Amino acid sequence: MAKQLSRRAFLTASTTTVAAGTLAACASEQPSRQPGPGTSISPIRVLHEEKVEFFGTHQAGVVTPAQANLNLIAFTVRAGVDKAGIRRLLRLWTADASRLCAGQTPLGDLEPELTDTPANLTITCGFGPRLFDIIGAQDQRPDWLAPIKQYSRDKLDPKWGEADLVVQLCCDDPLMLAHATRHMVRAGADYVATKWVQRGFLHAYGAKDEGQTPRNLFGQVDGTVNPRTPEEQLDQVWIDEGPDWARNGSCMVVRRIAMNLDTWEILDRESREVSMGRKLSNGAPLTGDEEFDQADFAKTDSFGLPVIDPMSHMARSHPPADHPEQRILRRAYNYDLPPEPGSEQLSNSGLVFICFQKNPKLQFEAIQQRLDEGDRLNQWITHIGSAVFFIPPGVQSESDYWGAELLGEHQ
Amino acid sequence: MAKQLSRRAFLTASTTTVAAGTLAACASEQPSRQPGPGTSISPIRVLHEEKVEFFGTHQAGVVTPAQANLNLIAFTVRAGVDKAGIRRLLRLWTADASRLCAGQTPLGDLEPELTDTPANLTITCGFGPRLFDIIGAQDQRPDWLAPIKQYSRDKLDPKWGEADLVVQLCCDDPLMLAHATRHMVRAGADYVATKWVQRGFLHAYGAKDEGQTPRNLFGQVDGTVNPRTPEEQLDQVWIDEGPDWARNGSCMVVRRIAMNLDTWEILDRESREVSMGRKLSNGAPLTGDEEFDQADFAKTDSFGLPVIDPMSHMARSHPPADHPEQRILRRAYNYDLPPEPGSEQLSNSGLVFICFQKNPKLQFEAIQQRLDEGDRLNQWITHIGSAVFFIPPGVQSESDYWGAELLGEHQ
Repeated sequence: MAKQLSRRAFLTASTTTVAAGTLAACASEQPSRQPGPGTSISPIRVLHEEKVEFFGTHQAGVVTPAQANLNLIAFTVRAGVDKAGIRRLLRLWTADASRLCAGQTPLGDLEPELTDTPANLTITCGFGPRLFDIIGAQDQRPDWLAPIKQYSRDKLDPKWGEADLVVQLCCDDPLMLAHATRHMVRAGADYVATKWVQRGFLHAYGAKDEGQTPRNLFGQVDGTVNPRTPEEQLDQVWIDEGPDWARNGSCMVVRRIAMNLDTWEILDRESREVSMGRKLSNGAPLTGDEEFDQADFAKTDSFGLPVIDPMSHMARSHPPADHPEQRILRRAYNYDLPPEPGSEQLSNSGLVFICFQKNPKLQFEAIQQRLDEGDRLNQWITHIGSAVFFIPPGVQSESDYWGAELLGEHQ
Repeated sequence: MAKQLSRRAFLTASTTTVAAGTLAACASEQPSRQPGPGTSISPIRVLHEEKVEFFGTHQAGVVTPAQANLNLIAFTVRAGVDKAGIRRLLRLWTADASRLCAGQTPLGDLEPELTDTPANLTITCGFGPRLFDIIGAQDQRPDWLAPIKQYSRDKLDPKWGEADLVVQLCCDDPLMLAHATRHMVRAGADYVATKWVQRGFLHAYGAKDEGQTPRNLFGQVDGTVNPRTPEEQLDQVWIDEGPDWARNGSCMVVRRIAMNLDTWEILDRESREVSMGRKLSNGAPLTGDEEFDQADFAKTDSFGLPVIDPMSHMARSHPPADHPEQRILRRAYNYDLPPEPGSEQLSNSGLVFICFQKNPKLQFEAIQQRLDEGDRLNQWITHIGSAVFFIPPGVQSESDYWGAELLGEHQ
């Protein structure tokens, strides 16, 4: 079967990342599997072997490539829970999360059959503004850990608003995700009540080439300009100044963005591309051919008009030359719910827009201010929820826990 | 790299089914990939190549192995839509479904990028009781196409009740599923309004060995006794008598079953297994070792008590010796929603229990009657929704459509 390896088969094998380095794949001559120009064959792996390391300098689930499914749960701390209670909660949650992400059964969970497929599960914890009051650390709260400023076009529903704690669970397996979510909610039940749950999805594991930028429900490639190298991530995402408890942490902004598919779908493809400034086919800027080509905002067409409309989403969100810090890590998921009873809409869809950055005042807010003032996409999208969380640094060992340096006995 | 093929590597390759028969996988020596006793290595395929054939004697999505994600949409026919309108709707829907399942863009859909990954998409259509009135075929309505009888323990919410039409979409990719669902809803919007949407999930594609029986959120292996051979399916699922328009069709019963995880999780594992009559580890009957071992209901323990509790779910649902027809094809999906606002429950979970059969009066109702009278599981589960649909036979060609023989001009 594998006596003759064609050059392509060899290339396929060499570009294939394999679970635990254990399987090598070899392609036989078959036109339908031949990678086209600019594409690569999908990695062939076995999902149930896949894990993301929980321990590290940074929390997982931030720069981790987005998994297929999201459960984002916001919590309100119950009355009477004090700093000692928060410490117990975070010790408990951290221990349980580390076990779940490793495919192990947390204490008190009698169902190893539901935890043996972590499928790239990540569990990421964040602290809302009021948590600093609860733990008596008002004076340590970062300036930026406050509600995002209100924009003229916002229609924020408080039911998707600020919360005391957030747990972001992302997983390539929906059953594992449901069980892990259930476990975390139950484990925390003495300390916190669920405020909201935002669920989302992207393509399934294996449905697209690895590393392919996800698409939203408007069909747009969404997240092309994300920081991909450790240097870019350090530059945009990870806090690298201030107190020790904040360093290597980040800031998560969650915006719930309703997308009106009913009116969007009336547009022809060209109008859709003009609104975005990018091609629908592969996300390339309208001045380029490939997704990662640099946009040429100065380029004009034969009428002397700019090829990329200055009011397009891409042009408006692009950082000005004198403000290169206006970049964020987008980690958005699609949501798609049944229309509300009585609604005339055919859909109730949009984005759970999650982004990470060092400082939302300098990053998300500056970008959003421009988009609020003018963005062709505004006709079809509405921000309906907003919350901000401090993401503490990663957990380094089993004796460590989320926020330990902020909450430690010695403080 | 593949010069030496170990025996295990060869076995791996030979048990691997590959998309379009194009890739062969060869395992290198690596202990962590060694299949344990009684297990086999998961099939290694590329999800975005996977399709399920739409055309055939029977509709797909019935005996098709359950995909990871479900959208089950029930519709009410709009006032004024008559038989000709239903015919137009079903022609349109059938054409669109056949294209979507093949990874092609249906007419009026401008987003080939959102339809190029069918990922085993199936779209299955069913007719509710009132559809026969709307098309003036009351006298042809099957006796069994009527609400399931009310059981003593039912707490049915009409919002999950009978409807005129149902479309079941199942897919291994959540984004493809969302787009296909959106397309079908929009395509039908002139004729029908959405009544309810039931979403569900199982393990992701690739997360478990192919053909492994799914688990529900109680951790139970669910669906062991399903008909697996064409003979069993013909016996239990496919209508093989009566008018031509019904033959090779089936009956879908949808029950929404709430499962109380909060009280279930108080039980120890032994109590959970006694309730079910099966082992949690692999679904084996408590009298056996492997999932598919025959249950021995006569076997007693050292105290002379039956090993399988006669009130266990398995014992109660097992067909009596004189009624072998009391079997159904279960194709249930888990649901897991945020708790309703104000609820003290930590979860809002259960099953979208879908089953297929020839005649629910003789099959589902007979089984459910026994379960309603006594089933240890009843303490933790509640039926909260019920609907019945006739599933017309498969579509044989592009000129054919769902229900054509029932709706044809000559009738």
